[in-house]
Amino acid sequence: MSKLPDISKQFPEWYQEVIYAAELADNAPVRGCIVIRPYGYAIWENIRNILDTKIKNTGHQNASFPLLIPQSFIEKEKKHIEGFAPELAIVTHAGGKKLEEPLVIRPTSETMVHTMFARWIKSWRDLPLKINQWANVVRWEMRTRAFLRTTEFLWQEGHTAHETREQALEETLLMLGEYVDLIQNYLAVPVVTGQKSPSERFAGAEQTYTMEALMPDGKALQMGTSHLLSQDFAKSFEMQYQDREGNLAHPFLTSWGVTTRLIGALVMTHGDEKGLILPPRIAPIQAVIIPIIKGDEGEAVMRAARELHESLVQHDIRVQLDDDATKTPGAKFYHWELRGVPVRIEIGPRDLKNGQAVVADRLGLSKKMVKLNDVAKAVQDELGALQLALFERATQRRQAMWHKASKLTEFAPALEEKGGFYQVGWCGKAKCEEQLKRHKATIRCVLEETSSAVCFACDAKSEADVLVAKAY
Amino acid sequence: MSKLPDISKQFPEWYQEVIYAAELADNAPVRGCIVIRPYGYAIWENIRNILDTKIKNTGHQNASFPLLIPQSFIEKEKKHIEGFAPELAIVTHAGGKKLEEPLVIRPTSETMVHTMFARWIKSWRDLPLKINQWANVVRWEMRTRAFLRTTEFLWQEGHTAHETREQALEETLLMLGEYVDLIQNYLAVPVVTGQKSPSERFAGAEQTYTMEALMPDGKALQMGTSHLLSQDFAKSFEMQYQDREGNLAHPFLTSWGVTTRLIGALVMTHGDEKGLILPPRIAPIQAVIIPIIKGDEGEAVMRAARELHESLVQHDIRVQLDDDATKTPGAKFYHWELRGVPVRIEIGPRDLKNGQAVVADRLGLSKKMVKLNDVAKAVQDELGALQLALFERATQRRQAMWHKASKLTEFAPALEEKGGFYQVGWCGKAKCEEQLKRHKATIRCVLEETSSAVCFACDAKSEADVLVAKAY
Repeated sequence: MSKLPDISKQFPEWYQEVIYAAELADNAPVRGCIVIRPYGYAIWENIRNILDTKIKNTGHQNASFPLLIPQSFIEKEKKHIEGFAPELAIVTHAGGKKLEEPLVIRPTSETMVHTMFARWIKSWRDLPLKINQWANVVRWEMRTRAFLRTTEFLWQEGHTAHETREQALEETLLMLGEYVDLIQNYLAVPVVTGQKSPSERFAGAEQTYTMEALMPDGKALQMGTSHLLSQDFAKSFEMQYQDREGNLAHPFLTSWGVTTRLIGALVMTHGDEKGLILPPRIAPIQAVIIPIIKGDEGEAVMRAARELHESLVQHDIRVQLDDDATKTPGAKFYHWELRGVPVRIEIGPRDLKNGQAVVADRLGLSKKMVKLNDVAKAVQDELGALQLALFERATQRRQAMWHKASKLTEFAPALEEKGGFYQVGWCGKAKCEEQLKRHKATIRCVLEETSSAVCFACDAKSEADVLVAKAY
Repeated sequence: MSKLPDISKQFPEWYQEVIYAAELADNAPVRGCIVIRPYGYAIWENIRNILDTKIKNTGHQNASFPLLIPQSFIEKEKKHIEGFAPELAIVTHAGGKKLEEPLVIRPTSETMVHTMFARWIKSWRDLPLKINQWANVVRWEMRTRAFLRTTEFLWQEGHTAHETREQALEETLLMLGEYVDLIQNYLAVPVVTGQKSPSERFAGAEQTYTMEALMPDGKALQMGTSHLLSQDFAKSFEMQYQDREGNLAHPFLTSWGVTTRLIGALVMTHGDEKGLILPPRIAPIQAVIIPIIKGDEGEAVMRAARELHESLVQHDIRVQLDDDATKTPGAKFYHWELRGVPVRIEIGPRDLKNGQAVVADRLGLSKKMVKLNDVAKAVQDELGALQLALFERATQRRQAMWHKASKLTEFAPALEEKGGFYQVGWCGKAKCEEQLKRHKATIRCVLEETSSAVCFACDAKSEADVLVAKAY
């Protein structure tokens, strides 16, 4: 039971350590890769199940495209290759021979999916075409960190084709909205949405919409993106169809994705000095029952604990009974707190005599005695309350770190020292945006709001408010 | 509506064509790879959901291990590298540089999983360790064929560690049994189980158990394998733990997997001249409703069709209403027969007047008028009957192609010409087994039965019956 690093003073070390200690992941013996261990993978499965249902309910179908992409495909779309070339992992040999054309491990699948779309889309009747893929991708990143940025990561990538730009934009925003629901209402992480500035767009997108969260250390984390792609993709991949008027036309394309990075966001947003705190709707184990065995009454307590377990299962609560006889209750408390299980139920001889159990939540909001017959209901209530409390807590913290500011020269010191969101005006010029680099910050997104009159860097009129922050 | 090749005369061409025509998959523009299209992927999702539940119910947990494996890992286990070396795809460059050590795209994950097991298993308390992974793997095969053998394929790979050989063997057989249930009772494909001969074992296994199915063209198809691994893996990867007596010990390991090949087995086993026939328990669409619209009564028919649809949904039937007004009923029949939807429901003006609909199954076993209120129940009955009928039909066909034989010289001509299973005695010597190569056949598995007295090739006593066949 080694202690975690101090979360308030050593946040990066705490993050790294809690991931290993809670057995979410382990470093793999391959540069920048992790092994997602069962407890971490169970979180991913929950995220995936929720999002997969949303993806299907909005009319998309899953499919599977190849891992390996001929290098020439990646090079077809000029901006795309510029963006991804430095990060590619390349297969040069296979089956004991040098390949005639090297194959790239997909960093994303636009080039492969669009090649197939070009075959499948012949008429306007084939549109919209709405496909999703759950897959692994590889990007050779310089600096990696468990879940947040790894050489290989898991994600879903949606790819759609439409008759009009309006329909494609509608799709882009629809899926952005589904992501926001997933992230705010299940992961309990508040996000701001908006467009990326041109310099931060996906390589080959006309518009990139992003969701940005603010971590407790004041750094922004991009939670996912949804792109209206440039028509260049459709042209580069010779995607043509007969439209309703009988003319040849290029479809309008979108792509959108979220990754295992979401697990990193969960860990950072909710964790505390004792370890993880998992929002109930995403927690693999929502409640743990810890019998307090003393002397002769052990068997009666165990029987009551098993009955409680059965009752909670009947109420569709993901519950675990920790009946390990070799560990003390204290060691069990520590174990499950570290793993962020939302609700703990204790039952000992005295509780049993009184026909009750102790129900306590991981955030320390409530700890109360509950009649045995009412425990399942009480746990459901606690889970609901905790879900909201976690979102509320994260939202308040973000609010305290969200500053309306005006001039870079004024807010730069605070930005560098404490981080946070700085909402400022921007003239829209890349030259002004570039000045942020000196402070290791970027424009995280362009907001709908236009409360600022002047650019943060020059004296020109502001086109729109933007959020400036340092980011992961 | 092009016709499929004649299934009785051009089976391989029929197989290839039905996969494209029914939109299960498309050839990818990468050697030996396919794109699994939504209809094919939905079958895989059904297989995966059923098997994943079985895997979890038997105490395994899912995890995710890296795609890329250092070449030196693969070389640690001598027999393993001998088996897989010719099939490896190798990443030599990444991030714009030549790698110091090449990375191999996993052909299977034993070497990576065992490296992690060595870290995680310290004490007998850490055992059994039972992990599963759903993943993609790459094997550079010489000859590829959609689903049956592709360069990249999807699979699950289970990896477990145990204290004793007995426990490991029990696990090996437990998962073999789960596979058999999946394949026989959901995919409706009969299989024979048995051990592989030493020459056909997994590279590095002490015992390999296999499931063998017989396709309608007389060729065997290996449906999946479950291995008791050799202790060499535990030793090569320095997996040591403190046992119950306090001594250092090596765990006993298993691995087991099935792949997207199962979809190919489904297609071949059940299909006919009209296309696919999908067993109801695995079919993405179990029933399709086709309204027969004529003249004025269209709206009333459509309303009744929608009510039927709603009623079937309520009964948990995966049903689709084909309300495309641009297509004739005949075109729709063709479309859904090609895709193997188990049950078709037709409703036209006259049916509506009589308060009934036509319910017909894809195999042509039954076509009857059913009162509208009874359609859901009738469809459920048809689905249940068809599931059994498909298994029964496949079992009878296999029986007719399963020959008890004695001497290779006698059965070789029939084996070469017509295929089939040949159950014969075997002395156990590789020299005799090798004689099968001349006839492009192999020992598919060693049976429990010992009905033959003498080896099929020499005059020595038979050790056990074996099944001989040509195989995919």
